Amino acid sequence: MRRPGRVDRSKTTGHIWRVPQRNLREQLIEGGSRVLIERGYHASSVNDIVKAANVPKGSFYNHFESKEALALETTDRYVASYGLERLAGGDGPPMSRLRESFQSIVDRLVDEGVERGCLLGNFSTELAGHSDAISARVATALENWSAVVTAVLDQAQAAGELDPSLDTAALGTYIVGAYEGAVGRAKLTRDRAPLDVFMTTTFDRLLA
Amino acid sequence: MRRPGRVDRSKTTGHIWRVPQRNLREQLIEGGSRVLIERGYHASSVNDIVKAANVPKGSFYNHFESKEALALETTDRYVASYGLERLAGGDGPPMSRLRESFQSIVDRLVDEGVERGCLLGNFSTELAGHSDAISARVATALENWSAVVTAVLDQAQAAGELDPSLDTAALGTYIVGAYEGAVGRAKLTRDRAPLDVFMTTTFDRLLA
Repeated sequence: MRRPGRVDRSKTTGHIWRVPQRNLREQLIEGGSRVLIERGYHASSVNDIVKAANVPKGSFYNHFESKEALALETTDRYVASYGLERLAGGDGPPMSRLRESFQSIVDRLVDEGVERGCLLGNFSTELAGHSDAISARVATALENWSAVVTAVLDQAQAAGELDPSLDTAALGTYIVGAYEGAVGRAKLTRDRAPLDVFMTTTFDRLLA
Repeated sequence: MRRPGRVDRSKTTGHIWRVPQRNLREQLIEGGSRVLIERGYHASSVNDIVKAANVPKGSFYNHFESKEALALETTDRYVASYGLERLAGGDGPPMSRLRESFQSIVDRLVDEGVERGCLLGNFSTELAGHSDAISARVATALENWSAVVTAVLDQAQAAGELDPSLDTAALGTYIVGAYEGAVGRAKLTRDRAPLDVFMTTTFDRLLA
């Protein structure tokens, strides 16, 4: 995401005290993600973000027009980390791939702290009606995710792993919603139990 | 919720310009609920609340210690409106009662505007980590609701309406989570479709 005509002075001058621009941008995204997911959008200031990113305060607006612009990029990165292309196009039995994908998403959420919640779920309740741009981005992310789940369920039906009479489009939407609901509950109680219930009920009952 | 030793001067003096205290409190709860669910907790000020409630600004702190105190009462009222005692103890086949209960909750949400979302879901993502008091109240509300769903599923098993091998405790948690996730999605897209998917997938597949 380097801007084309921009000279990266840190490289041309080689001064050791100049932090490369690209690093500052990445640091802002990383620190910003952390702050936005932990505190929520309204409760995070640009000041909080530059502090968490450990970059000079003045540098924020060299890289992002606004907190909203940073949040949009953060949303894209968050979804990209789910590896949905790999899930949709991977090898191996479709139902195992789907279960492993959700299990790895759950495991990472637990590792990072269930009290943080899911950025998509957090933004969907907090920002609907406040930021149309972020809401649209989150809606697209959830729709893409649901569509990939549906595609894998279609593969499972074709492979004879899943009852062919089931409505896979409805299930894709339902399962992503059930995941987000379980994350909301886990966030609130700081307990992974609802996530484990999500996994067993989805895979051992709903899709069994 | 009248405070015991408090004299309601509007009644004793009969002055037409005195608004009864109880009404002001109710107006604050009603206006406050509307503002808190529509804008979220952080984005709602006490000033917004008194405006929506159409009461004098100075009256807020006569009735509530803080915005948090109002939000706690709003949470209790929201859950009370679900009629969970009626659901748990009502007559008629358990599965029909459960379906009708969720359908009426969905219908009311749609009537009032899906873009508002559910107060419990909104607060669970926005306030975890910000207000322990509200988070605890929302967690209790969701646990009570799940427990009632579980109790009705137990009744359904006893009545031979539901597979007796199913884990009703897990299903109670799962279904309430799936509902909250569907509401989050509907709020984001301003479309009731995820709620209809919730109803059919829960009742025609998960519990069928």
